[in-house]
Amino acid sequence: MAGITLNCDLGESFGMYQIGNDEAIIPLVDAVNIACGFHAGDPHTMNKTVQLAKKHQVNIGAHPGFQDLQGFGRRNIDILPEQAYDLVVYQLGALQGFVTIHDMQLVHVKPHGALYNMACNNRELAIAIAQAVHDVDPNLILVGLANSELINAGEELGLQVANEVFADRTYQPDGSLTPRSEADSVIHDIEQAMKQVYEIVTTGKVTTINGDLINIKADTICVHGDSGEALHFVQRIREIIG
Amino acid sequence: MAGITLNCDLGESFGMYQIGNDEAIIPLVDAVNIACGFHAGDPHTMNKTVQLAKKHQVNIGAHPGFQDLQGFGRRNIDILPEQAYDLVVYQLGALQGFVTIHDMQLVHVKPHGALYNMACNNRELAIAIAQAVHDVDPNLILVGLANSELINAGEELGLQVANEVFADRTYQPDGSLTPRSEADSVIHDIEQAMKQVYEIVTTGKVTTINGDLINIKADTICVHGDSGEALHFVQRIREIIG
Amino acid sequence: MAGITLNCDLGESFGMYQIGNDEAIIPLVDAVNIACGFHAGDPHTMNKTVQLAKKHQVNIGAHPGFQDLQGFGRRNIDILPEQAYDLVVYQLGALQGFVTIHDMQLVHVKPHGALYNMACNNRELAIAIAQAVHDVDPNLILVGLANSELINAGEELGLQVANEVFADRTYQPDGSLTPRSEADSVIHDIEQAMKQVYEIVTTGKVTTINGDLINIKADTICVHGDSGEALHFVQRIREIIG
Amino acid sequence: MAGITLNCDLGESFGMYQIGNDEAIIPLVDAVNIACGFHAGDPHTMNKTVQLAKKHQVNIGAHPGFQDLQGFGRRNIDILPEQAYDLVVYQLGALQGFVTIHDMQLVHVKPHGALYNMACNNRELAIAIAQAVHDVDPNLILVGLANSELINAGEELGLQVANEVFADRTYQPDGSLTPRSEADSVIHDIEQAMKQVYEIVTTGKVTTINGDLINIKADTICVHGDSGEALHFVQRIREIIG
Repeated sequence: MAGITLNCDLGESFGMYQIGNDEAIIPLVDAVNIACGFHAGDPHTMNKTVQLAKKHQVNIGAHPGFQDLQGFGRRNIDILPEQAYDLVVYQLGALQGFVTIHDMQLVHVKPHGALYNMACNNRELAIAIAQAVHDVDPNLILVGLANSELINAGEELGLQVANEVFADRTYQPDGSLTPRSEADSVIHDIEQAMKQVYEIVTTGKVTTINGDLINIKADTICVHGDSGEALHFVQRIREIIG
Repeated sequence: MAGITLNCDLGESFGMYQIGNDEAIIPLVDAVNIACGFHAGDPHTMNKTVQLAKKHQVNIGAHPGFQDLQGFGRRNIDILPEQAYDLVVYQLGALQGFVTIHDMQLVHVKPHGALYNMACNNRELAIAIAQAVHDVDPNLILVGLANSELINAGEELGLQVANEVFADRTYQPDGSLTPRSEADSVIHDIEQAMKQVYEIVTTGKVTTINGDLINIKADTICVHGDSGEALHFVQRIREIIG
Repeated sequence: MAGITLNCDLGESFGMYQIGNDEAIIPLVDAVNIACGFHAGDPHTMNKTVQLAKKHQVNIGAHPGFQDLQGFGRRNIDILPEQAYDLVVYQLGALQGFVTIHDMQLVHVKPHGALYNMACNNRELAIAIAQAVHDVDPNLILVGLANSELINAGEELGLQVANEVFADRTYQPDGSLTPRSEADSVIHDIEQAMKQVYEIVTTGKVTTINGDLINIKADTICVHGDSGEALHFVQRIREIIG
Repeated sequence: MAGITLNCDLGESFGMYQIGNDEAIIPLVDAVNIACGFHAGDPHTMNKTVQLAKKHQVNIGAHPGFQDLQGFGRRNIDILPEQAYDLVVYQLGALQGFVTIHDMQLVHVKPHGALYNMACNNRELAIAIAQAVHDVDPNLILVGLANSELINAGEELGLQVANEVFADRTYQPDGSLTPRSEADSVIHDIEQAMKQVYEIVTTGKVTTINGDLINIKADTICVHGDSGEALHFVQRIREIIG
């Protein structure tokens, strides 16, 4: 189980609007994905969040998303690959600014929300994003859904990649996540979620929605920390993966 | 006259909206100040403009401004010094992203519009901006109005600074520009403007609005290239400064 | 041919960014669709454009679009029908403000760009938009692509509708426009475009891309006026429809 | 004390970002000022908030502000009076859209944050805002700081006005509020605040920061409802004014 990390999206407040439970969750995770001011976050929040990550010595990653604050970057926008390229370069650079002033290092990149989902299923978009990451810094690690186009694209370009798995989402036989629009997409029972985590980290396989057992590569687990319940959830996963 | 350069604001288009005459003006200048997506510019425009600057081998500078696209960054916004610090770090970083992917170097920083004017007259704001530039990269040159608080702040922090002068703006006895709200703030007659440029570059002095002759340090002249007339204007200055 | 009108999108400037040739085109058209500040336009531009429409006594319509200034409202965004409802109500209201202060009347509504295209093909989205128009004012005319879901939705809700046809776009056998992504989607030859207009207005039919002759209902023709060439184009159509 | 009302700012959430305690506060107040999407609020929030106001039968007012979501409309922006006019018309219209679809009536207008403060002290800005309100609907009530330029401007234009007083802010001898930048600007002790409310509503006077007793006209009291403590605060004021 060595090497499986916990990552969490952070720094998603905006101006007066506070969201998330950053201070409570950060001691429990290994890596944070910091919003870069497009789907969430603002310059002040980014500065503060980088400082928080530095204090807790967690790996800092960029979490670029669509420029859609109102939709929190969760609505698909039909952009061209070259537009995705440019918006990833912009957001990586902006976060890099704050990482630099605090003498830290940008370690990884994980696209956010709709951009992540679209890139995991769309080869052209995935290539554009991976190329942007590579051009900004070929040592950055690209985080994507295990077995997705995003992972493939990163590997093709010679980037180090991290396969991401989910504790509380169900899997389709092809390894994709069950879409949120379907009834059984989310695992609400914490014991069932822990069972899935345990299965993944100990066997390298996951039981899909129809009972199949498929291989799944797991480098990092995505957790959320918005509520007290979520904190408990993260603590449980922490116990499993060590 | 050696060392006096021409600088120009560039990359101010946004999405479908085209502004400026970047391709025509860039061969005539030594340095460009590229909008960073707040008061103008967008990721695609920034990418394209950095490429244009690379092709013409001009120095690349960041042109950070207020997040006020509708006002083109020309309306004073009453921000705190720490907010100015954060927005400068963000915008420098974002532009640095595009500079990096094209293997170029960010050379200087010149605040835009209202942020420039406010910082030239407000010591706290000037210090915050200079500190941001310094923290991102202490080798960056800070461009500001000759003799202004911005220049003072840069020097205090040990930054290399560039005193900027204007060909077509009149000067007050204290060395500040006559505010645009006053009738005689802009020099419309090209011959008079050229006379002012010639006076500055050959004597290191400028005749103010009330006839005084004051010292003025001139490292760089700001030009605009939005119209055919402006191009002619730039060509004339080019002839004077060599 | 009585009753076929020319409509044009107007008021698409934003802040310092000028776009379109509003003053030249408006005398040639019967109705204008004014951008409402989401995909283009701003409060000042809306005010000015309503005044221009009043001066030229053309019908004023709202042209609501996605909140995507950078993409000019031309990129599909995956919104829910209720989100479409709310953004149409908001934009109609905002324009109504300017119509009111100039003692004018809002006559019609035509969604813009990607919102128009999506609504023409998506019944749920079309219903949501038509319902918003109806709830704001049941006397408003809903303009949509001839035979589209948008027209159907308007009719179902008892709205007056206007079927829109295009002079310079080719048609598919099912009456939809050939997507812009295909090579022969746009008619570049002015004589061929005029032939299509003439065919539509005199026969009520249009020859599709594969040579079929299909029925098409034409209440209004969409024209653009961004260039000198476009003006000539509009003048030619004006001659045909009288 | 008859006729003194309680008003509260509401509908300030944006997208995923929730702010305020609208459901708890609304039963305690007489009138709500609904954010219009510039400094806070979005089309969905506006729709929901108008429905909430309808359900609780409170007066609906517009709360237009600067287009500065990141600063929550609290940062002064140096706009021209005609820009203020246009942004008020736009925002009133937008809210009117939602008021219309729910068969309600827009009753009053109260500018938000920095726009309110600037207009209370700047006659030209005040006139522009009052004119916008008047042009949209001369029956709207303009709410402003008691004795301010905003109130004067409304009266000059023949608008009905409402003088607003504050329970928890101290007053200067000239009747203006002590600026927030000064130490004793806010009354933190609830008993002292209640004493001030009681003094204002029973005597028509207020004791200023230096002990003077000055006349103050009080038509409405502004309350906030963001926390449990604030709710208690509002209940106490409710008891005093009846």
